[in-house]
Amino acid sequence: MIGGGQLARMTHQSAIALGECLRVLAGSADEPAAQVSANVVIGAHDDLEALRTAAEGAVALTFDHEGVPLAHLQALEAEGVQVRPPSAALHFAQDKMAMRRRLSELGLPVPDFVDLSGDVPAAREALIAFGDAHDWQVVLKAVSGGYDGRGVWITSGRDDALAAFDANAGGDTILMAEEKVAMARELSAMVARSPFGQGAAWPVVETVQRKGQCAVVLAPAPGLSEESAQRAQQMSLQLADELGVIGNMAMELFETVDGELIVNELAMRPHNSGHWTMDGAVTSQFEQHLRAVLDYPLGDTSARSEVVVMANILGAEDAPAMSMDERLHHLFARMPDAKVHLYGKSERPDRKIGHVNIVGLPGATVDDVRERAERAATWMSTAVWTDGWDPHTAS
Amino acid sequence: MIGGGQLARMTHQSAIALGECLRVLAGSADEPAAQVSANVVIGAHDDLEALRTAAEGAVALTFDHEGVPLAHLQALEAEGVQVRPPSAALHFAQDKMAMRRRLSELGLPVPDFVDLSGDVPAAREALIAFGDAHDWQVVLKAVSGGYDGRGVWITSGRDDALAAFDANAGGDTILMAEEKVAMARELSAMVARSPFGQGAAWPVVETVQRKGQCAVVLAPAPGLSEESAQRAQQMSLQLADELGVIGNMAMELFETVDGELIVNELAMRPHNSGHWTMDGAVTSQFEQHLRAVLDYPLGDTSARSEVVVMANILGAEDAPAMSMDERLHHLFARMPDAKVHLYGKSERPDRKIGHVNIVGLPGATVDDVRERAERAATWMSTAVWTDGWDPHTAS
Repeated sequence: MIGGGQLARMTHQSAIALGECLRVLAGSADEPAAQVSANVVIGAHDDLEALRTAAEGAVALTFDHEGVPLAHLQALEAEGVQVRPPSAALHFAQDKMAMRRRLSELGLPVPDFVDLSGDVPAAREALIAFGDAHDWQVVLKAVSGGYDGRGVWITSGRDDALAAFDANAGGDTILMAEEKVAMARELSAMVARSPFGQGAAWPVVETVQRKGQCAVVLAPAPGLSEESAQRAQQMSLQLADELGVIGNMAMELFETVDGELIVNELAMRPHNSGHWTMDGAVTSQFEQHLRAVLDYPLGDTSARSEVVVMANILGAEDAPAMSMDERLHHLFARMPDAKVHLYGKSERPDRKIGHVNIVGLPGATVDDVRERAERAATWMSTAVWTDGWDPHTAS
Repeated sequence: MIGGGQLARMTHQSAIALGECLRVLAGSADEPAAQVSANVVIGAHDDLEALRTAAEGAVALTFDHEGVPLAHLQALEAEGVQVRPPSAALHFAQDKMAMRRRLSELGLPVPDFVDLSGDVPAAREALIAFGDAHDWQVVLKAVSGGYDGRGVWITSGRDDALAAFDANAGGDTILMAEEKVAMARELSAMVARSPFGQGAAWPVVETVQRKGQCAVVLAPAPGLSEESAQRAQQMSLQLADELGVIGNMAMELFETVDGELIVNELAMRPHNSGHWTMDGAVTSQFEQHLRAVLDYPLGDTSARSEVVVMANILGAEDAPAMSMDERLHHLFARMPDAKVHLYGKSERPDRKIGHVNIVGLPGATVDDVRERAERAATWMSTAVWTDGWDPHTAS
């Protein structure tokens, strides 16, 4: 697995059960996965020689992020490495313009978009025309390289949009713009697909974003109609098949105020919106990704409970004086059923350093389970024991 | 953790979630835990220097087997190492005579027993007197060092018992004899205890033994009365407290044909009878052992389902021509809900090389879940797809 982050770390846990040890290409020995795997290659993910070293003798090569240059993957494929997902599929997770174009061709619902990759004055004109046509409901995006809110500028009007364009155009960042969708909430439809072509979809979840990154996941998405859930799963399975994805794919969706589904982003790897599966589904997303990448038949994606909530533990603005270890003690004392997953990362503001899963008992309400998950995660982040998320006041 | 076997391997999986990496003292780099942990010390478990190296800088030292010489542990304790369970407790898991005597003192139900550690002729006389008094319903045991049926001789009468004694007495093996209990089945009452003194008990399970070792575990023990289950849990919690156990303790019990409970063996570590908790309980025995050893509050021991069955994957008499990998492919295709845990071990007859957990859906019967678990494990062992365990003909 290329990348030594928490996704590789948790994939290693699942590799162990399958009788394997995950080899990790990590930038340094203190990255989350490098801390725990017996098979670590130290090197950069954009260094072809390091990639070759990591791939040597491996059954397959896969990823914990989208950052590997496509040309390197094509070179490895030409040398016979089983790159999974293959570069031809991963391309669409790396390049948002290519993704938008392909999804449009396939008839999948996407927001209106405009290519701003041309020369700057012409691109600026194109943005102005696009903004005027969409009442300046505009999101500016970097075509590649963004994650967790980076590379996305949600603008508040014409001046703001043009300022964001002027600040970012003409450099290394290739830009595009999209129509800001009148959304009710965000969903994620995660699937896995094997080389054999088998597909499997987990229940569709609701993702709650804060500061541009995933904060909370509600599984399944509360109140989502059976019809919408099936539609989302079918779109995700269809797209994985059309693109030839191997491994996991998260299709992030907007549910509009009118109940329509619109595709937002794609990720082809284990994904934050699937962390709930570690404790809440028969097959975790990490085991499933391995099963897909290694061409095993896929596992049962059923939820183990009617409601499961995942809340990310984020680094606080001011790191608490109380140690993580002490916070964990208190959490375990208060919530013996909380399932905590820590990544071995130092604390920095808004950095994902772990997550908590709460699996609801029969009859538990989403609000109750969510309140407990958010309280646990807030405690682990800040060492403040709040009432957590309040369904009456918070979002 | 001293010992690089499958118990350490699976403990490492749980350590990762707690933000840790398990340091393992393994005999060689190809042992199950050494294959997967980033922190391995190679050395012998009976070499004090190797133990010191493994303990250096560690918060606590614990075990995946009972084989570490007590004197070494006492030496480490004198040097300030947090040995968990402490030598004073572990002694009773290492020495069956000491265990029997202590349990008798505490008023816990044990089979009649006799010390055969003295000089051989006197011990032989003691055995004859004991055998005559118990109608030659006699089990001969090595006082220490036995596991998975080794060091236990279930004898068929006077001649057989004396032959077993004559074959084993006078050497390094210290012997004892016990009354063979008229048992209906075997149970295991697993608990964990923290240094703080908190205790937590999982549901009592039935263990099905074959060739002297655990083959199948039914959780919870089918048809066990609430009263007996509570009695077993209370005995186990009480004993863990009396002995000052830190970490997991499995109390293996006989349920007699009269419905009485009699203590058979003790193990103070994660135990085969607790493997079902990995997929079937809110807190797995491996996470719990770490929580106890690291003095965290203990986790919720509730089962996630009304019935969970674990079946060991054992090396077959004749290793199948079909590879483990291919067997796994077929199993996954047939049973997408089977949770497989492989240990990275080579196949030898009756060697524990992995296990399968099946978590029953609501309403599933023990027989159905057991049949599926046994079929899966038999397939993985032998590459023969049988009807598995048949409740009408098999035991």
